[in-house]
Amino acid sequence: MDNIKYKDGVLYLLDQSLLPNEEVYITPKTKEEYFEAIKKLRVRGAPAIGIFAAYAMALIDEDKFKLKEYLDSARPTAVNLSWATSRMLDAHKLGKTLIEEAIAIHNEDKEMCRKISEYGLSLLKDGDGILTHCNAGALATSKYGTGLGPLLLGKEKGYNFKVFTDETRPLLQGARLTSYELEKAGIDVTLICDNMASIVMSQGKINAVLVGADRIAANGDTANKIGTSGAAILAKYYGIPFYVLAPYSTVDFNCKSGEDIIIEERDSDEIKNMWYEKPMALPETKCYNPAFDITPSKLITAIITDKGIVKQPYKENLEKILND
Amino acid sequence: MDNIKYKDGVLYLLDQSLLPNEEVYITPKTKEEYFEAIKKLRVRGAPAIGIFAAYAMALIDEDKFKLKEYLDSARPTAVNLSWATSRMLDAHKLGKTLIEEAIAIHNEDKEMCRKISEYGLSLLKDGDGILTHCNAGALATSKYGTGLGPLLLGKEKGYNFKVFTDETRPLLQGARLTSYELEKAGIDVTLICDNMASIVMSQGKINAVLVGADRIAANGDTANKIGTSGAAILAKYYGIPFYVLAPYSTVDFNCKSGEDIIIEERDSDEIKNMWYEKPMALPETKCYNPAFDITPSKLITAIITDKGIVKQPYKENLEKILND
Repeated sequence: MDNIKYKDGVLYLLDQSLLPNEEVYITPKTKEEYFEAIKKLRVRGAPAIGIFAAYAMALIDEDKFKLKEYLDSARPTAVNLSWATSRMLDAHKLGKTLIEEAIAIHNEDKEMCRKISEYGLSLLKDGDGILTHCNAGALATSKYGTGLGPLLLGKEKGYNFKVFTDETRPLLQGARLTSYELEKAGIDVTLICDNMASIVMSQGKINAVLVGADRIAANGDTANKIGTSGAAILAKYYGIPFYVLAPYSTVDFNCKSGEDIIIEERDSDEIKNMWYEKPMALPETKCYNPAFDITPSKLITAIITDKGIVKQPYKENLEKILND
Repeated sequence: MDNIKYKDGVLYLLDQSLLPNEEVYITPKTKEEYFEAIKKLRVRGAPAIGIFAAYAMALIDEDKFKLKEYLDSARPTAVNLSWATSRMLDAHKLGKTLIEEAIAIHNEDKEMCRKISEYGLSLLKDGDGILTHCNAGALATSKYGTGLGPLLLGKEKGYNFKVFTDETRPLLQGARLTSYELEKAGIDVTLICDNMASIVMSQGKINAVLVGADRIAANGDTANKIGTSGAAILAKYYGIPFYVLAPYSTVDFNCKSGEDIIIEERDSDEIKNMWYEKPMALPETKCYNPAFDITPSKLITAIITDKGIVKQPYKENLEKILND
């Protein structure tokens, strides 16, 4: 699935906020248009945001230092965003051709996804029931994806998985993107509400939980879409392996534990006002709308990166890979 | 809150399917209209369904045996429904005046709610943070409610609770009914998505979880709105007391454990197609939509009934109350 395409000086972005009902490509030009696309989730998924921001750094003719700062502020929790803009800034300082650097980031991401998918697939078997939360598929990255990578790669190799996807309130990435993406790939997928994860686990329908990550702390604590920590607690209770799949670049060694990760709080309109015909609550009713939560590393069976499968103790083993 | 009113031979029902945007009373006359109101959740909450069905048994001039069977089939999981219709059938056999029996059931329910509320309030303290799921308030019963009873009674007595209510997908009873009801009562309430329960618990904002019940097995296993078992697993993980509040009549001694309870499966339209402007998934995408789940009794700190507070071991202690 080509969510980001660069051709003849123009960047095309599949507007994920319109899926699954409309497939529309937008062509951002100004820094404000790039910022808006990140902020409004037209592009989402940590790796895809990084790729998108790299092209922005290459294609927008402004002071690169200020541009990096501006783009980074669109999604403070997404470590891949600042990672990609930093790399582009370094390339700029070294006098490199920036569009070549952006294309390199894009290609490296495709290769990274393939590796994660292969490592992940090695932990699954044909016929497995899988639960996913949010969207960490091809739409969130550039090829295969991270969280969904083993499923998409497995499909190509003839595996038959039975996938349940949480709808992922409030913005429904699981319903709008994951079920769309798996359906298009011909994978058996069933959509459930987030609060149905417990019953499908209790019925023995789930053999593994696969999720992506927005940021992984040095001790393995993982920030991902709101609801991920709940899914991890359920998996622990039911004795189901819980896997985080993410590029190694998602690990932030400056961040000691989940306590250091700032949780972005979003507008209450996202919860209240996007239901069938009418608002679902009174105008005066307060909402709390955190975009992410932290899954403690003790609940994570393995972190699957492009550099290998990492298990507890995470602090030592994540560092070990860095030094390899 | 008067959700069911009987006056001069006419039954008035506040149509809960239109809340919180419209307050409309309907006046069902035929058995089909009563059936439809139960089936389509215009009346919901185990006790309210029982009261409503009792009036139906009194007011519809047809064979009472067939009528009972017909009404019971509208919501097979709701034990209060068949309990109330059985009691009305017994009254009919004894030649009692049926409308008087229905009014008695209604008044007993008000008294029952007051007792549950008092027992429940004895377990809470001023300033407590509370999580609720679905709606077990006055709208679901006749006065105070069961799950919300301690909060509404507590408010009258000057307690200040900080309540978080799960929106409760797919039909959003928590958003549409609980937040509405608590807001109207002047209680501090914050609406969250179901998948945010874990983060608010992790932040120390929750001191107790209060839920209702649709059916309680002899061993304490509890059928309640989908998502309840997940909330109970989270509460266990975070060390938060998890309370089930329900009339003692919700206990079904014919049902040994949760495994004997049939889970009603509802239409996938409820998940996919009742969303902001457009369907949230492709037409071909499958959904799984169970209306209830089973919370194992080992996760329940106490079952609070109108006959007292019951703790583990539930089988012995639920029976003991029966014999008292």
